[in-house]
Amino acid sequence: MSSTNPNPKKAAVVGGGVIGGGWVARFLLNGWNVSVFDPDPQAERKIGEVIENARRSLPALYDRALPEEGILTFHNDMASTVADAAWIQESAPEQLALKHKILADIQAHAPKDCLIGSSTSGFKPSELQEESINPGQIVVAHPFNPVYLLPLIEVVPSKATDAAAVDAGCEILRSVGLKPLVVRKEIDAHIADRLLEAVWREGLWLVHDGVATTQEIDDAIRFGFGLRWAQMGLFETYRIAGGEAGMEHFIGQFGPALKWPWTKLMDVPELTPELTARIAQQSDDQSGHMTIRELERLRDDNLVGMMRALKKSGSGAGGTINDHEASLQNHGSIDHLPVTVDRQIPQSWTDYNGHMNEAHYVEISAQASDRFMELIGADAEYITAGSSYFTVENHVCYVQEITAGDRISVTTQLIKGEGKKLHLFHRLMMIDGQVAATVETMLLHVDLKTRRTSEPGGIVATNLAEIAVLHDRLAKPEQLGRAIG
Amino acid sequence: MSSTNPNPKKAAVVGGGVIGGGWVARFLLNGWNVSVFDPDPQAERKIGEVIENARRSLPALYDRALPEEGILTFHNDMASTVADAAWIQESAPEQLALKHKILADIQAHAPKDCLIGSSTSGFKPSELQEESINPGQIVVAHPFNPVYLLPLIEVVPSKATDAAAVDAGCEILRSVGLKPLVVRKEIDAHIADRLLEAVWREGLWLVHDGVATTQEIDDAIRFGFGLRWAQMGLFETYRIAGGEAGMEHFIGQFGPALKWPWTKLMDVPELTPELTARIAQQSDDQSGHMTIRELERLRDDNLVGMMRALKKSGSGAGGTINDHEASLQNHGSIDHLPVTVDRQIPQSWTDYNGHMNEAHYVEISAQASDRFMELIGADAEYITAGSSYFTVENHVCYVQEITAGDRISVTTQLIKGEGKKLHLFHRLMMIDGQVAATVETMLLHVDLKTRRTSEPGGIVATNLAEIAVLHDRLAKPEQLGRAIG
Repeated sequence: MSSTNPNPKKAAVVGGGVIGGGWVARFLLNGWNVSVFDPDPQAERKIGEVIENARRSLPALYDRALPEEGILTFHNDMASTVADAAWIQESAPEQLALKHKILADIQAHAPKDCLIGSSTSGFKPSELQEESINPGQIVVAHPFNPVYLLPLIEVVPSKATDAAAVDAGCEILRSVGLKPLVVRKEIDAHIADRLLEAVWREGLWLVHDGVATTQEIDDAIRFGFGLRWAQMGLFETYRIAGGEAGMEHFIGQFGPALKWPWTKLMDVPELTPELTARIAQQSDDQSGHMTIRELERLRDDNLVGMMRALKKSGSGAGGTINDHEASLQNHGSIDHLPVTVDRQIPQSWTDYNGHMNEAHYVEISAQASDRFMELIGADAEYITAGSSYFTVENHVCYVQEITAGDRISVTTQLIKGEGKKLHLFHRLMMIDGQVAATVETMLLHVDLKTRRTSEPGGIVATNLAEIAVLHDRLAKPEQLGRAIG
Repeated sequence: MSSTNPNPKKAAVVGGGVIGGGWVARFLLNGWNVSVFDPDPQAERKIGEVIENARRSLPALYDRALPEEGILTFHNDMASTVADAAWIQESAPEQLALKHKILADIQAHAPKDCLIGSSTSGFKPSELQEESINPGQIVVAHPFNPVYLLPLIEVVPSKATDAAAVDAGCEILRSVGLKPLVVRKEIDAHIADRLLEAVWREGLWLVHDGVATTQEIDDAIRFGFGLRWAQMGLFETYRIAGGEAGMEHFIGQFGPALKWPWTKLMDVPELTPELTARIAQQSDDQSGHMTIRELERLRDDNLVGMMRALKKSGSGAGGTINDHEASLQNHGSIDHLPVTVDRQIPQSWTDYNGHMNEAHYVEISAQASDRFMELIGADAEYITAGSSYFTVENHVCYVQEITAGDRISVTTQLIKGEGKKLHLFHRLMMIDGQVAATVETMLLHVDLKTRRTSEPGGIVATNLAEIAVLHDRLAKPEQLGRAIG
């Protein structure tokens, strides 16, 4: 949690439960220094557990390394906590009087131009701003658990809030991979929790009336519409259901059902001890074979897997990750070779042998080839214009086992880059510099229209010739030209 | 759509819109013959479009090939449609009198022991059974669009329904990769649509009140809780939120919020032409740049990607796919070599060059090595007992481009299997038998505790010796021992 290379970016987090800890992890793993104020003597342990989960999962979303972790500090006074902060986040319990007291304390010491976000799900910003010396500084910034993985932040300003300050705040949130959704009208529970509330209420009725157990309700969600909503939400899904006839047709067809007595409109089931015990028992039957920690890891592995799948299309959270990934820095060179990959290994890349599956070594070397192509000018624009390189042969030597969470970097040596041929040698290295694998690869330049080999463009050939001068001076890898057997 | 190898399994589908077409595709692609009755002259075209989507996506969920497609026939009379059917599915418009008429017609000709499922979302089974000559034969079997991908089927029997028939029906649904959820109490809208209804109503209010647009509501879902629900649903997610203190603690903490005036409990917004037009306009702003067909393909690619990610943990839909995949037949031999892989290429395996990325050739060869290990007795049980093979070297020759939807089979030739060494040669072949790639691979037998090489168990050595006798008679591959350069 310490760093020899402190980052000037500083976030202050006031209140360090599961939500506050998630904010800490989100900023810290994105290279921010984070100062924490929480009177709970267990705060440091609890936040540490959240950070541990985050270190396992957040970097696994990306195919590039996140910045070096910031410095985490714990404070006993508000003044040192919030001094010089660029973002302040309050995550205290949901009691308005308590939040007023804390916000006043924060504002007494905070930089005047720093936005203060509140994690509240229950209060409107104008309520939080009551009695404030600088009401425009306070906004709702409502996150979703786990905050270190889920991108959504509902940002709710009031009329007192300066629009430019909101814009600047959203920019900060985006810079740590979040997706700010500015809610234009103050409303109880913002947007998402209103929808959640409606389902939660209906779910409680179904259990109360003995129609379904908690497991059956969860199954009704996750085997069906849950999968639709993770990518498109409600309205876009219904747009598709309406077909070519469109949304008006869909509403005309399904609107009348709203008047049918389907949902329990008028009432809330009383949460008697009996009903509470029934829900708890059903939940034990459903999930009691796993600890909360095991459930958290299962949830996080699934989230990472699904969000990585969405990166492919850029839908929803996948687009947020792609944007953030593009903003991550590329790295320099090691021993005069370009570093073409620097990344962490996701859980989902491991197999039944408990290590990274052989295919992902080639996934990494393919990423290294892609990056090398960018370096020589065969980039996305070049490919769109109609030319590319295709791999025709790979020779992989697996030297060391790689496990989930390992940080891997790759250097790429140009063996030969003349005419249609591009002959590369990738070294996959552990964080201590030891070689985990080598991939010798031969690519051919191709015309994407004819799908046949062709000569590369002038700038690519020139760049290759320049790099060849440098790399020809280096020793040839011992695995070069190796055959099996 | 024809087959030289007809399958005795037969499903009858009455009503062929988007939902009926989805049922057709689900059965057909799982090797069932399907007969369709629909008076709509456009039915054949519409169903053909759904099947085209399904062919693109359903096989992409699996790492084994689905059975050969069944035969699809269209009928003008009910008698020939439902004769000899093992499953009959009614997907007519949501009008009770019409459904009564169709169900009576079906029952006049259907086998007496064949369950008739209705796709209705609005009617209870006891309502469908009114006036029926054999009420116990009719159940609700309510699917979710797209039926060819989403596994959930709400199966709702009434008191008149025979429990054994429901069990047998669920077995049929599971055999085509579906997840039947038996709803134990009849209730309007079953389970999932009650939850959807609650959110739909709340969403309409948010648009009506100008709080949020359709895009903002969708974003509030898909960047946050939608991702949680796709894997775990509502209650298990809240169980985690409750932490070690458990579900009772969670309800105690969040139950009171149910009494707050968050959701619009008392009323439904009137769907005036103005409100309908506003929703349609917002939906156009959000998604109008894509056709419905494009949206469908985006949705399907995302669903396939997310469900493939869930296969890793077996959560939700991932578990259903794993179970179904395990039930798919393994294949025989080609030219005396075992067929170790037979599968379709998912969309998500392609890259910016418009063909399968180089890493997935090795993913396929790794699957072939896994299957070969099973054949020689180094199977899951053997690995659990503490031994396995690790790949130490691969040489890949990329011969032909492979694109999404291609069917690829792999034969595996044993080059040498003595002592710790296992030397294999995989040929990846297109459906016409042409070689798309070769992978020469060297594996070493490993003690999983020490992570060091070791001698294989007796049965594995014996099996290898037997296969060696057969494969030694075959010609050695020309690419064997090849080096790059």
